[in-house]
Amino acid sequence: MNSSTVSHSHNATHVTLRGPYLLFLGEADHDQRAKTAFGLRDWAPGRCMGQLRLPACRVTLGLPEMSPAAAAQAGAGSLVIGVAPKGGQIAENWFPVLREAVAAGLDVISGMHGSLAEVPGLAAAAQARGVRLIDVRRPPANLPTASGRRRSGRRLLTVGTDCALGKKYTALAITRALQERGVAADFRATGQTGIMIAGSGIPLDAVVSDFVAGAAEAISPDAAPDHWDVIEGQGSLFHPAYAGVTLGLLHGAQPDAIVLCHDPAVERIKSLPEFPIPPLEVAARRYLEAGELTNPAIRLVGVSLITQGMDEAKRSRVLADAEQRLGVPAFDPLKTSLQAVVERLLS
Amino acid sequence: MNSSTVSHSHNATHVTLRGPYLLFLGEADHDQRAKTAFGLRDWAPGRCMGQLRLPACRVTLGLPEMSPAAAAQAGAGSLVIGVAPKGGQIAENWFPVLREAVAAGLDVISGMHGSLAEVPGLAAAAQARGVRLIDVRRPPANLPTASGRRRSGRRLLTVGTDCALGKKYTALAITRALQERGVAADFRATGQTGIMIAGSGIPLDAVVSDFVAGAAEAISPDAAPDHWDVIEGQGSLFHPAYAGVTLGLLHGAQPDAIVLCHDPAVERIKSLPEFPIPPLEVAARRYLEAGELTNPAIRLVGVSLITQGMDEAKRSRVLADAEQRLGVPAFDPLKTSLQAVVERLLS
Repeated sequence: MNSSTVSHSHNATHVTLRGPYLLFLGEADHDQRAKTAFGLRDWAPGRCMGQLRLPACRVTLGLPEMSPAAAAQAGAGSLVIGVAPKGGQIAENWFPVLREAVAAGLDVISGMHGSLAEVPGLAAAAQARGVRLIDVRRPPANLPTASGRRRSGRRLLTVGTDCALGKKYTALAITRALQERGVAADFRATGQTGIMIAGSGIPLDAVVSDFVAGAAEAISPDAAPDHWDVIEGQGSLFHPAYAGVTLGLLHGAQPDAIVLCHDPAVERIKSLPEFPIPPLEVAARRYLEAGELTNPAIRLVGVSLITQGMDEAKRSRVLADAEQRLGVPAFDPLKTSLQAVVERLLS
Repeated sequence: MNSSTVSHSHNATHVTLRGPYLLFLGEADHDQRAKTAFGLRDWAPGRCMGQLRLPACRVTLGLPEMSPAAAAQAGAGSLVIGVAPKGGQIAENWFPVLREAVAAGLDVISGMHGSLAEVPGLAAAAQARGVRLIDVRRPPANLPTASGRRRSGRRLLTVGTDCALGKKYTALAITRALQERGVAADFRATGQTGIMIAGSGIPLDAVVSDFVAGAAEAISPDAAPDHWDVIEGQGSLFHPAYAGVTLGLLHGAQPDAIVLCHDPAVERIKSLPEFPIPPLEVAARRYLEAGELTNPAIRLVGVSLITQGMDEAKRSRVLADAEQRLGVPAFDPLKTSLQAVVERLLS
């Protein structure tokens, strides 16, 4: 998100990425396939130097076209695979580009399921050239277990009534709103796209369970007293498969503030519809109750709602209803102002 | 624990161990160093065929002394490293015994930190001989995420106010008490010693966080309607480092019944004493509240207390106090009868 994110994280427990990036779009035939690249362009413009497309590619980020050699020449640090083909595997016709990137002295960054080390010859070439192959889905080794020690600085964590409710987007938007007000703030990433945006982080869902809370502590180290870490949430306390990840993150993050993310149109867990989503009041209370274990001063400061597709009248009604029920500002980070939630956060 | 545990678990998501065992005691100089072997002798006597000791060993299980070849001849399935030297590493002077075991056609089972694959030549020898090297600290690959689907049969999970409070011991004692009453019951293991006792299981604290609840589902599959799985608990909802593991296990286990394990002499988390242990009533309520997500019919059936070192009068007072506060039978599985809790469970 900004340079301080990177400088904080020169230690063995972080994935740390070298910017700026050359964004590789492969043969993407639709913007949706290049979501990672668009996310980087929108949320980390200062880290994005150019784009590289294969002939069949039908997507553009509007960035300068560059070869790996030209990007390296201009100071790029990494080639980022910004496209996700079906199946999540590294395609064979990408191999020449990846080798070219290594030869040019760029790190290669991938969020694919398949490992970069499986590209024939690439690992040896990278070692010889002194560059890194970074699979951001793989967590660093040697993570500590949590100590429970309180850290200096302040922290906000986004939490949700379900998965995939804009927890990352909300955290990014709050970070930006704080920075625009001159408040020192860093976005702290816990998932692969977030890690590419921030330039560092730990993919929490891939961490061995005993170390999840410890990883969350490592993601957000001691900071200046009025500095805010805005931490990307994962999963949901109300999702039967992932609540453990969510709880470990909540305990390790030790947030002073939480923002509850919710989709008012959805009443059941999307991937397991036999499980109902609890009322907002219950969800907020359960997060606060659980978070009090490691930060007794935890408070709810806002509710982030998905309101796309609603007309203005409906949106206002839905936001007002959530505000009334929870007693905190409600907003849609894509549609409405974040001023009230930032005021509440800083009050 | 019994043969059905093993027969249930012929699938890729389980570590499945081949009995009976030849227990290797190395050069143990004190019973405490051979805790694993004593646990196996006490809780899985039917799986323990003999013992094998190096000349300097000063500990005995009272089992017949056997060489690997003699044990294999008599039908043994595995040599189990039943001793834990300082540091948890496999000692060099064990190598000849391990090679002898493989040559005799035994699987080798280890709970050490170091991997059996690191013993020079052992992996190749095992492959050539068609036997397995099993590090029970390593979870199986290809675990599923949780489905949330309710399974047939009934389940009890032991939970705790802290770690190391007798959750495994309590589960074993309840399983035995049920079996002695003629109730079909299996102990389901979630940690390494438990896995050796049961002959199968998954070491939950070593599972990647996204798969903990899925692993807990796999540990305790569909069973006959009146069959009880008694599942070994892990960690504590009130431990700032491990609560996520505990919650994932609770959600995946979907217990009909929980038993709360507690040490009345302890008021703070042992490894992180700045964190207080909540009152018993609060602890029970929080476990039930969290467990209701995947089993709305969850109920507390007992409280297991550590009362060693107390005189009879003190013990009675402490047990009566817990019974009065929680409204369920209290017991010490080492010191008092389990009859009342089993009655409650079956009622």
